[in-house]
Amino acid sequence: MQAHSSLPTIGVLGGMGPAATADFFAKLVAATPARCDQDHLPVLLHSVPQIPDRASCFLHGGPSPAPMLSHIARGLERGGASMIVMPCNTAHLWHDAVVQAVQVPVLHIVDPVLCALRRDGITCAGLLGTTATVQAGLYRQRDPAGGIHWLEPEAHSQVQVAAGIAAVKAGDLAQARPLLLAAARALVARGAQALVYACTEVPLVLDPADAGVPTFDATQLLAEAAVQQALQS
Amino acid sequence: MQAHSSLPTIGVLGGMGPAATADFFAKLVAATPARCDQDHLPVLLHSVPQIPDRASCFLHGGPSPAPMLSHIARGLERGGASMIVMPCNTAHLWHDAVVQAVQVPVLHIVDPVLCALRRDGITCAGLLGTTATVQAGLYRQRDPAGGIHWLEPEAHSQVQVAAGIAAVKAGDLAQARPLLLAAARALVARGAQALVYACTEVPLVLDPADAGVPTFDATQLLAEAAVQQALQS
Repeated sequence: MQAHSSLPTIGVLGGMGPAATADFFAKLVAATPARCDQDHLPVLLHSVPQIPDRASCFLHGGPSPAPMLSHIARGLERGGASMIVMPCNTAHLWHDAVVQAVQVPVLHIVDPVLCALRRDGITCAGLLGTTATVQAGLYRQRDPAGGIHWLEPEAHSQVQVAAGIAAVKAGDLAQARPLLLAAARALVARGAQALVYACTEVPLVLDPADAGVPTFDATQLLAEAAVQQALQS
Repeated sequence: MQAHSSLPTIGVLGGMGPAATADFFAKLVAATPARCDQDHLPVLLHSVPQIPDRASCFLHGGPSPAPMLSHIARGLERGGASMIVMPCNTAHLWHDAVVQAVQVPVLHIVDPVLCALRRDGITCAGLLGTTATVQAGLYRQRDPAGGIHWLEPEAHSQVQVAAGIAAVKAGDLAQARPLLLAAARALVARGAQALVYACTEVPLVLDPADAGVPTFDATQLLAEAAVQQALQS
């Protein structure tokens, strides 16, 4: 699985969950300027849904996903990936471990979201992510200058978000949507200027127009960042 | 990239085109019975859009895709794939070469379509595929008993199909849809009991309800066959 063209291969460390990985791949293809198959970027994607649950590890001390994430990342690198992306926000709590496992760059999903929020002058962003992503301050800690106020769901609302994400992972989008929509609206009612879809399951059930404020889909922004980096290299 | 669970890894030889590969992956995930991430099947997917154009090779004697298909298949096998699928009908003109390149089974996209047509008692099926797929008789030759009459588009209609497929590959779905729809309706008008979406670009723009007759989406049926085989093994 060496390079088959002068274009770099994007390595996708996926499966967290698999439907979100499929959504990311579709967004990557759509974000690539191309007139025919051959203009598109090579992608090596390994979807391993058996990676230990990220939220369980952070919240309840379950098995760490770090060893398996590192192992899969090394496999992608051996397979020819010139960069690695992980279309899962919570997995970025172990981003450092993956970075240390490989020589190639590992994009951070929060970075393109920060860029987009700053570009659009957002100073108060509501976060729709897993309880682990929110409690760990994944977005806040990546924004040390503190230019953005990160509005987190209230406790009962975060329970809805977590239940909605679990429902998406179980394939029950109809159950997931009202839960996530209620949490989204609560954040807007509390003053969020914009919403960050900070879990890759969220855009599978919420549309950009759902909340009545600008939305920033981390999956979409990571896909655009990967394409941009690949075409620049 | 060894196995991470007792579940077999599905190897996807993709990129022909990339959007069709993304569609296949999404259908594979949706076809998997699962209550959480960990119930899903591992997938190793290599999308290499630089594989030489299949139709150009068959119709105009361009470079053969066989060496690169074989090379990618071997990489998937080395990476831990227990079976290989190619979500591209035309690529199956070189199915034998891929079979010979690896030890693991390489599913044939036509087989689950034949099964489904026979199950539903279809005896006259209209083919919407690339000019190479149609001219080579890919479906007819896989059905040596001849139980199904394969209705092919008339010459001017096949030109529309080819142009529609090229438009999908260029990302212009709005241009593609009327071309493919016209060809679909012409097949139905000529007596097709059912339509086979025999090119993985076709279901990206035509819905099952579009033709007014039952449709058989080779992408969907290949995804279901792969899941079934993986869960049985």
